[in-house]
Amino acid sequence: MIINEDSVISLSEIESSHAVRSRRLRVGDDVCLINGQGVLAHGSIEHVDKRNVRVKLLSFEATPEQNEALLIASAIPKGDRQKVMLDMLTQLGVGEIFPLICEHSVTRYSDNLGGKWRRASIEACKQSRNVWVPTIHAGHSVAQLNEAGNYHLVYADISGVSMSLARNAAKEKDQPLMVLIGPEGGFSRSELDYFQKNKIAAVTLGGNILRTEAASVAAMAQFVSLV
Amino acid sequence: MIINEDSVISLSEIESSHAVRSRRLRVGDDVCLINGQGVLAHGSIEHVDKRNVRVKLLSFEATPEQNEALLIASAIPKGDRQKVMLDMLTQLGVGEIFPLICEHSVTRYSDNLGGKWRRASIEACKQSRNVWVPTIHAGHSVAQLNEAGNYHLVYADISGVSMSLARNAAKEKDQPLMVLIGPEGGFSRSELDYFQKNKIAAVTLGGNILRTEAASVAAMAQFVSLV
Repeated sequence: MIINEDSVISLSEIESSHAVRSRRLRVGDDVCLINGQGVLAHGSIEHVDKRNVRVKLLSFEATPEQNEALLIASAIPKGDRQKVMLDMLTQLGVGEIFPLICEHSVTRYSDNLGGKWRRASIEACKQSRNVWVPTIHAGHSVAQLNEAGNYHLVYADISGVSMSLARNAAKEKDQPLMVLIGPEGGFSRSELDYFQKNKIAAVTLGGNILRTEAASVAAMAQFVSLV
Repeated sequence: MIINEDSVISLSEIESSHAVRSRRLRVGDDVCLINGQGVLAHGSIEHVDKRNVRVKLLSFEATPEQNEALLIASAIPKGDRQKVMLDMLTQLGVGEIFPLICEHSVTRYSDNLGGKWRRASIEACKQSRNVWVPTIHAGHSVAQLNEAGNYHLVYADISGVSMSLARNAAKEKDQPLMVLIGPEGGFSRSELDYFQKNKIAAVTLGGNILRTEAASVAAMAQFVSLV
């Protein structure tokens, strides 16, 4: 199906309920819709009930994907800090996020984490009008990410090189840069040995030790200042 | 009073209660104390009751102040986002924070905000073992900060120059760099006019529009990658 201007879109039950109950939108109100893949549509509400809101589309704007994106593989922060991290990473335009399964992780990975992180990033996109929703992957260990072989991996550590040097190294290999962010207890001895054996370098995010979610956000903020 | 090794320190009633009730510390347990001004002390608990915990100091480490610090003047984010911002800025080693009073601010400045922000930054220091607690100032408007005359002011805007260029401009003037972060609704027309009249330049934090707290954290993360 091709969506044209003048098409009418039925919102999902969840989005309809949100539009009616939380945002109290009515027939004739202007709304913005995003598809998560670069398109922002302006429209006008044509029909309202609690389970089915229909929007008449009036115009589109397409934003091309960033040609250079950072991938974040982050240990799972505790509780609410997950949402804070997803929110800020999404605002900053992260391309893809991998939950990183580490030996010292306190919060264990479970299959419903992906859905939770996806909802948080969609919410962040709606609030910040970011038209590209990041891809949330299943949980991976350091070795699984390395064996995938498609990324230039670096891990966050105070001893490392600058983000600028890490990015240059990734560009030389023509691979996307992925920053691995450890859990509260840090990477384990065997994970650090793995980095050394596999020539995975450290990248520094500044002179202070940061908690997981702050480290992820700092990595992303430093990367976007370079592209 | 000079505090030596082997000195005994009585914790305040609040810290004593925290040590006993939340952390369940007992006589003989090892603890770290910070003074917020660069000193970390290792000690051992000598006496415990709910209102008075005494710690025998065993050794000290002093960390010199960063010789180049960023100052953040940030509009007041809503609710919980204030704590998130203070937490991450403190982890990243911010030197001084000014609540920025803007025309479009939704959350109004009040005198008890300083205390709230101070408690949040002390909490963040304790958690991240940051030994320098940032200075939290009273609320200031853009004009008040500019008239103080001691800072090289820039404001965060997508149209601006890089943090690196902003930092160089501040160094040339031999003034500390201060980034002004606007509220959700952005800076007002008259604030933007004020920037132009007073040659206050814009600094970009990346290609996306960021909410107040994400912008503050991104500015700080980008700055620490340069020093």
